[in-house]
Amino acid sequence: MAEDKVMQVEAKKSENFSEWYSQVILRSGFVDHSEVSGCIIFQPAAYFAWQTVVAAIDAEFKKIGIEDVYFPMLIPERLLLKEKEHFKGFTPEVAWVTHTGESELDERLAVRPTSETIMYASFSKWIRSWRDLPLRYNQWNNVIRWEFKHPTPFIRSREFLWNEGHSVFATAEEVKQQGEEVLGIYYRVLKDYFALPGIPGTKSASEKFAGAVASYSIEHIMPDGWAIQGPDYHDDGQNFAKAFDIKFLDKDGKTKLAYQSTFAISTREFGVMIATHGDDRGLVVPPKLAYVQVVIVPIYRKGSEDRVDAYARDVLERLKQKFRTRLDDRQGYSPGFKYNEWELKGVPLRVEVGERDMASGSAMVVRRDTGEKASVKIDALPSEIESLMGRIHESLYERASKFMQSHIHIAATYDEFKKALKEKGGIISAPWCDSAECEKKIKEENGTKVTNIPFDQGKLAEKCIYCGKKAKHMANFARSY
Amino acid sequence: MAEDKVMQVEAKKSENFSEWYSQVILRSGFVDHSEVSGCIIFQPAAYFAWQTVVAAIDAEFKKIGIEDVYFPMLIPERLLLKEKEHFKGFTPEVAWVTHTGESELDERLAVRPTSETIMYASFSKWIRSWRDLPLRYNQWNNVIRWEFKHPTPFIRSREFLWNEGHSVFATAEEVKQQGEEVLGIYYRVLKDYFALPGIPGTKSASEKFAGAVASYSIEHIMPDGWAIQGPDYHDDGQNFAKAFDIKFLDKDGKTKLAYQSTFAISTREFGVMIATHGDDRGLVVPPKLAYVQVVIVPIYRKGSEDRVDAYARDVLERLKQKFRTRLDDRQGYSPGFKYNEWELKGVPLRVEVGERDMASGSAMVVRRDTGEKASVKIDALPSEIESLMGRIHESLYERASKFMQSHIHIAATYDEFKKALKEKGGIISAPWCDSAECEKKIKEENGTKVTNIPFDQGKLAEKCIYCGKKAKHMANFARSY
Repeated sequence: MAEDKVMQVEAKKSENFSEWYSQVILRSGFVDHSEVSGCIIFQPAAYFAWQTVVAAIDAEFKKIGIEDVYFPMLIPERLLLKEKEHFKGFTPEVAWVTHTGESELDERLAVRPTSETIMYASFSKWIRSWRDLPLRYNQWNNVIRWEFKHPTPFIRSREFLWNEGHSVFATAEEVKQQGEEVLGIYYRVLKDYFALPGIPGTKSASEKFAGAVASYSIEHIMPDGWAIQGPDYHDDGQNFAKAFDIKFLDKDGKTKLAYQSTFAISTREFGVMIATHGDDRGLVVPPKLAYVQVVIVPIYRKGSEDRVDAYARDVLERLKQKFRTRLDDRQGYSPGFKYNEWELKGVPLRVEVGERDMASGSAMVVRRDTGEKASVKIDALPSEIESLMGRIHESLYERASKFMQSHIHIAATYDEFKKALKEKGGIISAPWCDSAECEKKIKEENGTKVTNIPFDQGKLAEKCIYCGKKAKHMANFARSY
Repeated sequence: MAEDKVMQVEAKKSENFSEWYSQVILRSGFVDHSEVSGCIIFQPAAYFAWQTVVAAIDAEFKKIGIEDVYFPMLIPERLLLKEKEHFKGFTPEVAWVTHTGESELDERLAVRPTSETIMYASFSKWIRSWRDLPLRYNQWNNVIRWEFKHPTPFIRSREFLWNEGHSVFATAEEVKQQGEEVLGIYYRVLKDYFALPGIPGTKSASEKFAGAVASYSIEHIMPDGWAIQGPDYHDDGQNFAKAFDIKFLDKDGKTKLAYQSTFAISTREFGVMIATHGDDRGLVVPPKLAYVQVVIVPIYRKGSEDRVDAYARDVLERLKQKFRTRLDDRQGYSPGFKYNEWELKGVPLRVEVGERDMASGSAMVVRRDTGEKASVKIDALPSEIESLMGRIHESLYERASKFMQSHIHIAATYDEFKKALKEKGGIISAPWCDSAECEKKIKEENGTKVTNIPFDQGKLAEKCIYCGKKAKHMANFARSY
């Protein structure tokens, strides 16, 4: 027997979430730590999932006229300096290139933490007239933000992959309209691929993007009850247009400043996905993002190895055109060892084939998410698996939605707010006057920030929970990653 | 009339190739210079072409078991130092990150010029037994090589996009076998997508990759008669395995050093493609890589604008499902202006529709590569255009092949070599003893290097052109980018 020890998750998700997360993500072989602190390695299953997400979003972007480009990764410091808020927001985390080969550079270059400044320098050159608008560009790339807090794979990585969309419009209305489209795309991809729900809304003024006039986000709730920001869309107004002199000659013969937007979704979503769906046996990957969707495990008995093997191969042939299927015919490992390993990796469905299955012309199909087993005739396998994939996805999404809903609590007063936060955690939806002062006080006293002001406002209570003045909206408060 | 001046290519390809190249690539809007010297901006047409190439190659890679991963971009200096030849080869061009935020790093980090060193540090950790082999990983990413020679877009860019494949095998034979597969994939994609021929062969010892035991390449000839290296495959032998301690426990119970390979194709190919197919009117993009494959230009006459417009829209409807089609219905620009602009951008086919075409239920189809025109009934348009796309691709490839063949000259003696080089340029195929000394002398005296030793050896002459000793192979010599 070549049996190695089974790599198991030892921590319990419900008891020690952060240790569980770290074990699941590493032991499943989804990612690994690298020699550079805070930068992770995407193993094949993780990178495949990202390629799938990129393809899905990119196709949707193209439908609404967004075009992909690629700008250089290194940004001269003088460009970063042009928009002051933006510079203040990003420079504390910038990785600086100061030397090339043996030479010191005259001006240091930032490894992009985001690309507004280098892109807008070109936009300013390219845009002359209303005919050049709208300009809707996007790039898929890697960025570096050298966070000094404790890094966590995907959740807080110093290098991550993302899309960064950057559009230029003639009017403020077009920025808003594109915002609805783009957030719609993000929302649907989160739902249809990650099986993740989220809360779309407006960021508070103090939490908005460095350089924007308004920011919109989709927020998630993690299993530990903390909130985490997902994709976002920023209405930059004319801030960058002023800083970078992005003007156009309009139809009326007047020269005008343009309006801009920025939007992004990143590999952080994998952190949310893993945290949300995973369990004490390991990853649970939604079928569309699973590198291996079906694993076939033959149960060999002495004397019938060859026949079981041939049967397993027949099952493989029936499935592999339609699903990403792997036959685990490794010798010297018990079926139990293999079950554990593929469960750890989060493969949505396992198909077991042994003598008894062979005799009845069937196979045992086991769901990763629920552990449910069913014997299925092999003729019916492809259609049954297809339907199971759909059901698994839906049930993951439903469970996550229920969890999210059950972790949003409404508070009408500051006492209720504190009580809900203490007893239940999660997101507290509470009336707020919109003042930065109240927001700051609530944060200082509770460690919560405004995650966003949800588009779905529900019923607005009258008074701000902190100052008692007229409430402007129901805002979501939470401790947040 | 809003007519702007037509952006034309003013330099002639045959007279001033490098000025022509620079004008074509910039004025067509394929790329632009950025604020960082030597780093270019991929505009939508360029990035689309790259996405297409990535998808094509990635699908082929997956068929032969290569899996995509993503490793961090920043590499600690100590890792780069581990393989001496490799370090010597790359450090003169490395961009170094020395600071993050306000802090100086304890150890400087290289922005990857290539990822052997960071990947192999992990491979060493992951690989334990023969069961872990082969490991065939690949990543699509950006790298920086801060060349100090004059940068040229695509040809010599300080940042470029590429694939880097890195495999680990138990045996040297598997490295060789994968080499044939991978070079085959590159060769076919060059042919089928870029419409580019190339010469596959072995690099000379002095031209091989820093750290490899043998390198293989596909070489092109540029319009100016200079050679340029295309994709390559490196047999790293056990060099990196030694430096990074990549060992495995074999079936026979012995611990052995692994064998490795590295392979890459980069955005440099766009430089070769543009140089090869372009003409004095601008880009000529092979149909599969063209962002816009068909442009419809309506010819408006007073009084029939609406009818011509409706007709053009009908043509658009017929084509847009099958081809990347654009209708250029801009007002205030003459058809001639539009023709020039789309020719500059290299769109393979133009479809002109005017009153006369409308009357006969047809459209005028014009090839970008040859200028040939044909009137086609609109019912037959989709099939005719499909067939034209194929013919355009083939004729571009054939023309490029003829050019290449006509620029390879055989020399049996050093006098013939010098004469051919002086009078004809291009690649000189000549017998060579394989000594680095002769190679060096020939280089010093002629400015030529050995581009590669072609797999297709033709007829081997007896004596080395330089020393007169027994020749080992026919090598290709050329001035090279």
